[in-house]
Amino acid sequence: MEIEVLLTPGEHRTAPLAGRLAVVVDVLRASTTIVEALAAGARDVVPVAEVAEALALAGPGVVVGGERGGLKCEGFDLGNSPREYTPAAVRGRRVVLCTTNGTRAIAAAVRGGAAEVLVAGFTNLKHAVGVAAAAGRDVTILCAGREGGFSLEDATCAGGLVAGLAYRCGDVARKSDAAFAAETLFRAHRDDLIRLFTVSGHGRHLVDLGLGDDLPVCARLNSRAVVPHLVEADRRPVLLPHPAVAGRDPGEATRA
Amino acid sequence: MEIEVLLTPGEHRTAPLAGRLAVVVDVLRASTTIVEALAAGARDVVPVAEVAEALALAGPGVVVGGERGGLKCEGFDLGNSPREYTPAAVRGRRVVLCTTNGTRAIAAAVRGGAAEVLVAGFTNLKHAVGVAAAAGRDVTILCAGREGGFSLEDATCAGGLVAGLAYRCGDVARKSDAAFAAETLFRAHRDDLIRLFTVSGHGRHLVDLGLGDDLPVCARLNSRAVVPHLVEADRRPVLLPHPAVAGRDPGEATRA
Repeated sequence: MEIEVLLTPGEHRTAPLAGRLAVVVDVLRASTTIVEALAAGARDVVPVAEVAEALALAGPGVVVGGERGGLKCEGFDLGNSPREYTPAAVRGRRVVLCTTNGTRAIAAAVRGGAAEVLVAGFTNLKHAVGVAAAAGRDVTILCAGREGGFSLEDATCAGGLVAGLAYRCGDVARKSDAAFAAETLFRAHRDDLIRLFTVSGHGRHLVDLGLGDDLPVCARLNSRAVVPHLVEADRRPVLLPHPAVAGRDPGEATRA
Repeated sequence: MEIEVLLTPGEHRTAPLAGRLAVVVDVLRASTTIVEALAAGARDVVPVAEVAEALALAGPGVVVGGERGGLKCEGFDLGNSPREYTPAAVRGRRVVLCTTNGTRAIAAAVRGGAAEVLVAGFTNLKHAVGVAAAAGRDVTILCAGREGGFSLEDATCAGGLVAGLAYRCGDVARKSDAAFAAETLFRAHRDDLIRLFTVSGHGRHLVDLGLGDDLPVCARLNSRAVVPHLVEADRRPVLLPHPAVAGRDPGEATRA
């Protein structure tokens, strides 16, 4: 198994993805929000890139959420805070999620011809490793980043995936330079993710917006047994819980 | 002081460099070779991007060196091994150096309008920090990378510059996400740079080419008291030892 990490969005366009498993990481906050929505019983999550596209999908049984600049868009039901995606808000409903960086990274993985696309954050790290290891494919982890650049928390979470895959697959795992670097970040910062978020530019931006309470939710390592998995439905890509872990007790991972 | 690190060459084109101090890092091997050449008494080093351009500058008192794919180009006097740039080979001569990644990063810094451009590797890290700290400017570190992508040893060396600048400038230093990540890499790997090189894709490639003896030279932390500094001469950018450290005994840093 070959493990590659794309640390910046600029690399998403040109990296070879065909036949590979792509894992999209946008810790603050799309990954975490998508995992929360599916854990709360949303029917599925439709990632969209543009506000108008999101609003066009509104209707009965649909919750439209997302952000621009970190804040809820006009006309949307919810923002991009994982705390908003409660069972009361989303259970049984389709969630249309429009975010800046995460959704674009998912779109890049699809355009690049990845064989499978998963979404991972710190909250579902262990189960994402399990699904990725079982896929038996080379893995490319796409860090969503921020404003087109490097994001500390995404690279660190990518490193958690690398560490887990290397542990599961042993010497079979061949890590790129970026995969090795990301693993170093994870080993250095895994025990204080909240501090990591308060160092990161995106984390500080969320605190400035009054959204600092999102950070502890995004830092809850292995708190969810849900791995969002991209499938084709209604002629568009939608995210569903991967069947290998879907339906497990969401508290299971925490107790493990 | 704001410290930014550009981890991948794709970021060099778009990052704002005007008015800033740019430090170009290409540990394996352009940075190390340029430092060795100037430490060995070369008159100056002319970085060029293309083989034909390098050959056109050949003539009396000129040594033409460099590589494509790690190997010496046809018609060149020397390759890109720092071990070749001895006093016997280069003292008093102009060195025209054509390398793949390092030279391009220097060109990107010039095109981006950086106020000053330095070259740093592990061998001149301490003195590069000294010159950069004294410049009183915001700093952007350009990792040359490899094949357009991330390079482990360049990012780690950039982190050494970040750590040194943050130590010298204290709380005044504001680090970007990438600067913080690079610093983590340096703190994790500074004590075993040879191991770092044997993990890195570029280091393994050099070993495969039979150039493994270059690695210990590139890993000699603070062994040289030379900081290459870009100036205009003969209507082209050339690298000279920065006057703040030029002329010191090259053994000084090792003993310090």
